[in-house]
Amino acid sequence: ELRKLLNEFHYADIAEILDELDLEEAIYIIKLLDSETTSDVLMELDEDIREKVLRNLSAKEIAEEIEELDTDDAADIIAELPEDRQQEVISNIEDQEHKAEITELLAYDEDSAGGLMAKELVKVYETWTVAGCMRRIRGQAKDVTRVHSIYVVNRQNKLIGRLSLKDLIVAKSDNKIADIYISNVDYVNVHDDVEDVAKVMQKYDLEAIPVVDDNQTLLGRITIDDIVDVIKEEADKDYQLAAGITQDVEADDSIFDLTKARLPWLFLGLIGGVGAFLIMEGFQDSFQKYAVLFFFTPLIAAMAGNVGVQSSAIIVQGLANDDLKGSINNRLIKEMLLAALNGTILAIFLFLFVWVVDGNMNTALAVSSSLVAVIIVAGLIGTFVPLFLDKRGIDPAIATGPFITTSNDIFGILIYFWIAKLILGI
Amino acid sequence: ELRKLLNEFHYADIAEILDELDLEEAIYIIKLLDSETTSDVLMELDEDIREKVLRNLSAKEIAEEIEELDTDDAADIIAELPEDRQQEVISNIEDQEHKAEITELLAYDEDSAGGLMAKELVKVYETWTVAGCMRRIRGQAKDVTRVHSIYVVNRQNKLIGRLSLKDLIVAKSDNKIADIYISNVDYVNVHDDVEDVAKVMQKYDLEAIPVVDDNQTLLGRITIDDIVDVIKEEADKDYQLAAGITQDVEADDSIFDLTKARLPWLFLGLIGGVGAFLIMEGFQDSFQKYAVLFFFTPLIAAMAGNVGVQSSAIIVQGLANDDLKGSINNRLIKEMLLAALNGTILAIFLFLFVWVVDGNMNTALAVSSSLVAVIIVAGLIGTFVPLFLDKRGIDPAIATGPFITTSNDIFGILIYFWIAKLILGI
Ligand SMILES: [Mg+2]
Ligand SMILES: [Mg+2]
Ligand SMILES: [Mg+2]
Ligand SMILES: [Mg+2]
Ligand SMILES: [Mg+2]
Ligand SMILES: [Mg+2]
Ligand SMILES: [Mg+2]
Ligand SMILES: [Mg+2]
Ligand SMILES: [Mg+2]
Ligand SMILES: [Mg+2]
Ligand SMILES: [Mg+2]
Ligand SMILES: [Mg+2]
Ligand SMILES: [Mg+2]
Repeated sequence: ELRKLLNEFHYADIAEILDELDLEEAIYIIKLLDSETTSDVLMELDEDIREKVLRNLSAKEIAEEIEELDTDDAADIIAELPEDRQQEVISNIEDQEHKAEITELLAYDEDSAGGLMAKELVKVYETWTVAGCMRRIRGQAKDVTRVHSIYVVNRQNKLIGRLSLKDLIVAKSDNKIADIYISNVDYVNVHDDVEDVAKVMQKYDLEAIPVVDDNQTLLGRITIDDIVDVIKEEADKDYQLAAGITQDVEADDSIFDLTKARLPWLFLGLIGGVGAFLIMEGFQDSFQKYAVLFFFTPLIAAMAGNVGVQSSAIIVQGLANDDLKGSINNRLIKEMLLAALNGTILAIFLFLFVWVVDGNMNTALAVSSSLVAVIIVAGLIGTFVPLFLDKRGIDPAIATGPFITTSNDIFGILIYFWIAKLILGI
Repeated sequence: ELRKLLNEFHYADIAEILDELDLEEAIYIIKLLDSETTSDVLMELDEDIREKVLRNLSAKEIAEEIEELDTDDAADIIAELPEDRQQEVISNIEDQEHKAEITELLAYDEDSAGGLMAKELVKVYETWTVAGCMRRIRGQAKDVTRVHSIYVVNRQNKLIGRLSLKDLIVAKSDNKIADIYISNVDYVNVHDDVEDVAKVMQKYDLEAIPVVDDNQTLLGRITIDDIVDVIKEEADKDYQLAAGITQDVEADDSIFDLTKARLPWLFLGLIGGVGAFLIMEGFQDSFQKYAVLFFFTPLIAAMAGNVGVQSSAIIVQGLANDDLKGSINNRLIKEMLLAALNGTILAIFLFLFVWVVDGNMNTALAVSSSLVAVIIVAGLIGTFVPLFLDKRGIDPAIATGPFITTSNDIFGILIYFWIAKLILGI
């Protein structure tokens, strides 16, 4: 009766339940499920859980599940297995075409269009008639969960256009495909970065996009559900990087995994703090009379950090969404003006506060004018570093968060004492 | 010839070009375009640019563009207009059905399923035959860019199931819809939050989802392209909030807009810094002998900030992705253990450093053991605050970034001096 109940659930819901259970219970339930459902459930499981479940299945059992999956999901699951098991599982796949397609997909980089595409698609030759086409589509479509577009190829299998099922239904049955297809078709190259594929599909509101090689030969297609996952994962990764968490942990991971993801960034912060300590110690003698200056270092560090995070976040997001135009110089000038404006407004408040509390206008002037300088420098660093990393081909997202706050703490405090010294004439 | 050239571009590309031009040039080009293209281009423009362009069009001209748009996009554009123009534009829409549908959509909250859905969909009655269905679909489908699913309703217009075009093509033409439709259909309520709709569509890999009212009456449908935009906007917003930027600015916005988005958070940081100053001033006398303690305040503040940001980010993300299970107490205990572990590792390094540099083991002990306490408290605050806000129905994303770093700066420094005082016995 549990079996009956389970088979009424959607596989994504079953996977969600299994993610919460002990391994033994999970495996017990997986063995209860209809064979067709198991493969889908496996695909939806949390990666850590799936790894454990697969360790408890034989290569032959895994191969049986693989047979039921679309090629893109099949290749992803195989890629997660240890090297030696991969070969064992592949050799147990009985459907030779499926085996060949999966092997092809395994060769592509997982961050490329090839790593995301499936071989399942509906393809027609330009020479076919509408009636012949409908007949053959009925055959092909059995293997394709959702048809989306029908891709039109020439004799050399090169992509030349597309058709929708709707177009086909509306067309007369003796029409030639060559006469009715739409030659204006979006496509991506198999080596394109998945983030670029996501941008194209988002921009043109596509539900599927064909993938071709350098010779325009049709290789596969990418569907929007997988792109949605890419967009979500990218966003989660960038968010975590900005917070100083190395990608790919969740609140429910073990303390050990979370420590591995968090400790390195905290260590960076510790080093920054030690740097700040050394700077302050260096200025110790100059400021015997102005102990009050030391009480403002957390303020200076906080402002430098906040401004740096703001400007780097704007740049990282602009780079990710491709909407940064103009030269680096213009960006820096704009950020400088912005920082100067924000800094001046904040400095006026700080000046009044210090003057009232400390009673010394010189100190107030020193603290507040160095605040302006610190904010400008922090803004410039926050703008420059991600742009620089991006130029170098490094993901600029690592430049947000602890990286920026730590360097800005050090630079901020250094500039602060240096300018204070200048203004107070020591 | 410019006209010819432009009409060969995709409307999304034209919009991208227009976003870069002066207003006059943009309007000149819009008037050059084929009437069908203009409405799509308008829809894709940057919101700020569209506002300016629309100000230069008459209510009648806007109404003409509205006629060509799908109801969801039409309603969105009208909603952006000033109140008085909205009525004027609506009264200029000639297609009475389109007008009624748009008016209906305008009534829904923009963050609800109703605010995102379109009235365009393909609907069949369970009593129809496959042949009759195909005939009528040919009619309905003209108005629907992409068919996705065909929704099956009963005589009372209540949603009872779905069909794919593929199912229809494969079925015999004298079959009744009632015999072949799939009764297992996902749907959302018109008042559901768009973020929840996005989660459902992502989980079940849907390309479109029907929207019903409380009586299960079919009202409209939401397509995945609009959900992709929702996911991207949500992620961008949360990222900006975490960086201390009030939502909805881009790198290319004016300095004034950017200041408005950034300054309030910086002001919060300033207040935090002033708080830190007051605390340090309060401890001034106790530490004549231990000036060195003051040099570690940026380190303490930085660590408190980093830990707080890490733990709040994990919680905010867990809440957003619905994968936080277990009680608040368990979360807090886990975070405490995690913070204690990370804190102890970091404290050992700090202890050695201070001992070597300062030569005083007591000072080293005071600084490093308060570091552990500060990290634990920071982790608890970072965990508790977003959970608390979420319980209260406030978006927890505002709790990341400056909000957490500022409060952690203050608490951190307070705890630091308090424990140092205790250990050094002053
Ligand atoms: Mg199975
Ligand atoms: Mg793959
Ligand atoms: Mg789009
Ligand atoms: Mg897929
Ligand atoms: Mg999937
Ligand atoms: Mg990225
Ligand atoms: Mg800080
Ligand atoms: Mg038009
Ligand atoms: Mg709307
Ligand atoms: Mg999905
Ligand atoms: Mg739409
Ligand atoms: Mg759109
Ligand atoms: Mg949110």
